[in-house]
Amino acid sequence: MYAELDTPALIIDLDAVRSNVTEMAKTAARHGVGLRPHIKTHKMPELARMQVEAGARGVTCAKLGEAEVMADAGIGDILLAFPIWGEPKLRRLAALRERARVRVSLDSPDVAAGLGRLGGPPVEVLVEVDTGQHRLGRPPGRPTADLVAEIAAVPGVTVVGLLTLAGHAYRSRDAAELAATARREGEDLVETAALCAREGIALREISVGCTPTARYAAGVAGVTEIRPGTYIFNDTTMMRLGVATERTAAARVLSTVIARPTPDRVVFDAGTKCLAADGTGSPGWIRAAGLPHLHLDFLNEEHAVARLEPGHEDELPVGARAQLIPSHACAAVNLFDVAHGVEGGRVATELRVAARGAVR
Amino acid sequence: MYAELDTPALIIDLDAVRSNVTEMAKTAARHGVGLRPHIKTHKMPELARMQVEAGARGVTCAKLGEAEVMADAGIGDILLAFPIWGEPKLRRLAALRERARVRVSLDSPDVAAGLGRLGGPPVEVLVEVDTGQHRLGRPPGRPTADLVAEIAAVPGVTVVGLLTLAGHAYRSRDAAELAATARREGEDLVETAALCAREGIALREISVGCTPTARYAAGVAGVTEIRPGTYIFNDTTMMRLGVATERTAAARVLSTVIARPTPDRVVFDAGTKCLAADGTGSPGWIRAAGLPHLHLDFLNEEHAVARLEPGHEDELPVGARAQLIPSHACAAVNLFDVAHGVEGGRVATELRVAARGAVR
Repeated sequence: MYAELDTPALIIDLDAVRSNVTEMAKTAARHGVGLRPHIKTHKMPELARMQVEAGARGVTCAKLGEAEVMADAGIGDILLAFPIWGEPKLRRLAALRERARVRVSLDSPDVAAGLGRLGGPPVEVLVEVDTGQHRLGRPPGRPTADLVAEIAAVPGVTVVGLLTLAGHAYRSRDAAELAATARREGEDLVETAALCAREGIALREISVGCTPTARYAAGVAGVTEIRPGTYIFNDTTMMRLGVATERTAAARVLSTVIARPTPDRVVFDAGTKCLAADGTGSPGWIRAAGLPHLHLDFLNEEHAVARLEPGHEDELPVGARAQLIPSHACAAVNLFDVAHGVEGGRVATELRVAARGAVR
Repeated sequence: MYAELDTPALIIDLDAVRSNVTEMAKTAARHGVGLRPHIKTHKMPELARMQVEAGARGVTCAKLGEAEVMADAGIGDILLAFPIWGEPKLRRLAALRERARVRVSLDSPDVAAGLGRLGGPPVEVLVEVDTGQHRLGRPPGRPTADLVAEIAAVPGVTVVGLLTLAGHAYRSRDAAELAATARREGEDLVETAALCAREGIALREISVGCTPTARYAAGVAGVTEIRPGTYIFNDTTMMRLGVATERTAAARVLSTVIARPTPDRVVFDAGTKCLAADGTGSPGWIRAAGLPHLHLDFLNEEHAVARLEPGHEDELPVGARAQLIPSHACAAVNLFDVAHGVEGGRVATELRVAARGAVR
């Protein structure tokens, strides 16, 4: 299996990636909403361009450093979904605005005031709303409407919309609960925007939707934009939530069996420093593609320790290979400098994780 | 606080590092055992050299790529505590043996056979023993003695000792349990080596000890080497296990408050992509230095969401900074390209995480 690659290696199934990218673009188009994928998942300029070519209106970044890499790659429309604070970052943001359209999300007049001092055309901002994750923002309705008014009063910024991340949707127990959370996410923002409009502040952007919720939230009337990230690669978390399958899980860590200490124990050369510790202990948190009878017991930093079901003990001798699907693709990809793109079952190209390490 | 650094930034208290390095070297010397620190924690040539200058006999690496970086830095004695398998790695190992003394640990005749084909002087190997973690190796006593005999029969390798990692010690509930596990770890290997000796295979190296167990295991008669790694930086896991304090926790992520959405909620610009997800949800898994009244609720990829105790709500406004101590220093450091060394409370030097990304 990919004999030319030594292990551990990050492999990306580009056929699955193209299909994932196309399917999400179609979902957005069918509902008439914009698609602005979060590039934190891949951090690769080539894949950001693929998303834009498939119909995305631009990209979402968490870090200014990620946004700079994307602008270098010719991406001209960037949402920085993170409050940008402090003089060094504000200077970089001013430079970035010279070469791309940049919006910023935030939840305080303090952060808005910094942006307002940038000069040039007003900075377009989206106000983050707390729809249940309890991260940034105030609750929908009156608390957010008041905050929008406060921020709109800050010189040098224009509030263009509302934004949320329904991170609590990851705790959904079934598709019905997930769909309900996603619809509530969209409706909360649409209703809050209507309240703002009645009070004289027209908001034209309603930006919602992570990978699990995007397909549902896109259907809520009034939503204008979805921002899924993980959908390009998927992972076992998306499989558990019912929005991905092993076939659409496009990012895998190719690894080799380096020990068989007992008849049923199989140890691979990939641990948390390749797969990340995200999701530790949750059922099926790391899966080996095509090997449903192999179950992960635990990860060390450089080891994956797994167990074969009875009757399979003669499989996977030392030297055998498997493709491990991470629990959290964004975290696993971020541990590699380079990925290997696979097409038609063959290693076709090398992809640099160009924005990895852009922590600021 | 370190105004010249933008955040998030990895800062290393070099005064604490020197003290940690010296204290462990003294512990090893007092017990008359060798110290071979695991460099996976820092991956920095400067700090490996500091450890050797303080008395370490050499270093431990998990990856061939790490070992190559250390040999480049002039480290001449390396234990590769990982089974090295496959032609590409064996070719690299042969080249590495030209410029450093290299030993390898393993638990199978299969892996030994590959090493045996390298040519040159026999490869010195240590056999990994399962003292309770259930990762590599067979149990101590008869099962391991049989394995040692099998591996000793492989042409081209010499079994020089036994090695274990008592990873299960991390689950200790108190110092007494930790000490007992550590002593058992040493005694198991010493007794097994005596059995091998009676059967004609003399083993001169008994290599044990991670950071929590090293101080106890070093005192077991017959132990020859300890291999702690995390002790150079420490983390909240070591604090929980009672082998570190906030003062000796030398690796921190300097971060900035970017949101105060409620009176008690404080959000920092550092998440799992700076601190890693290791230890998620365990009590006090991320701590803010000097702020015992601040408690972490959760991490997202780029956010740390924390809560102030009642009475402290006027602290930590947007723009304030804190030093976050990771749950697992090895995983957090591995997320940065560069660390900033602090001496006497001032930023003094830049340290490259040179072996980060050396995944193979």
